[in-house]
Amino acid sequence: MTLPYPPDFEIREGEERLPFDPAGAATDAGLVFIGRVVSPWTRREDCPKNMREAGEKGGGARLVLDRAYGAGLRGLDGHSHAILLTWLNRSPRDLIVQRPRHATVATGVFALRSPVRPNPIGVHVVRLAGVDVGSATVELEAIDVLDGTPIVDIKPYFASTDAVPDAARPPRTGT
Amino acid sequence: MTLPYPPDFEIREGEERLPFDPAGAATDAGLVFIGRVVSPWTRREDCPKNMREAGEKGGGARLVLDRAYGAGLRGLDGHSHAILLTWLNRSPRDLIVQRPRHATVATGVFALRSPVRPNPIGVHVVRLAGVDVGSATVELEAIDVLDGTPIVDIKPYFASTDAVPDAARPPRTGT
Repeated sequence: MTLPYPPDFEIREGEERLPFDPAGAATDAGLVFIGRVVSPWTRREDCPKNMREAGEKGGGARLVLDRAYGAGLRGLDGHSHAILLTWLNRSPRDLIVQRPRHATVATGVFALRSPVRPNPIGVHVVRLAGVDVGSATVELEAIDVLDGTPIVDIKPYFASTDAVPDAARPPRTGT
Repeated sequence: MTLPYPPDFEIREGEERLPFDPAGAATDAGLVFIGRVVSPWTRREDCPKNMREAGEKGGGARLVLDRAYGAGLRGLDGHSHAILLTWLNRSPRDLIVQRPRHATVATGVFALRSPVRPNPIGVHVVRLAGVDVGSATVELEAIDVLDGTPIVDIKPYFASTDAVPDAARPPRTGT
């Protein structure tokens, strides 16, 4: 499961790597992929970097679960939004401090939403456009991952616990 | 990694199990635990069921990362909130339709925030009360998991993509 760095992967000034590869040590718990994302994005350079960009680009998307998990979607159609967890399987996992493109300073991975992280799980707040239990599929208005990305979990979004509209973040540093 | 059902675990009317145990099939990807949650809750019956209840109970909490991951916290202190991902390691994984206590109808697991799910990853929107890179610790105002729960990831919370204050959910059915 240890992924090599892609040929075009660049370690930037200020970035730091762990002294070990989390992928090689990742035996604490195991995931089962419950399905795949069908997305319009097949090339990394086209893929929106976050759900705000995805919403602007639109294009729709579909979550296709393995049939065995279809019954798990029962009742999801009453929700307007969900939290989608994906496995961002194209990333190295050992870059603990990163300098995003166009950023002037390097930042810890736990202060970034980069797909490069010890456990590359993506968290995406998605708007639901349709749920079909029989075919084990969910239609989305938009998504910010590449076509074929594995799905790890779907959870209902609850404004009461998940929405913090006044959450504060540091001033942008070029990211 | 297949966990037996706890002795007091009760399958309720309307609930459905998968024909296989996801824990036994969970070899698609591997997680590394990056630390543990230090929480006031040592007994399941005391533990808040969600972050709203946790906020009401208070009590504080601490995320203690393995030292190697400390540098990953750099820059997190500029954020008021984070998304914490945990591994809810005390749950069976094969209950695909569930009827929460006090609920009148059974619901698919992907429409519930139950810890019992094919990949028992908890998503918690937490308010940060302090970040110390040197000791690799993060102070929280509150948490809704048991003491010792493994940590899988920490991400900054961005209101622009994560806050949907008007997200709709179905009327409650006794949950």
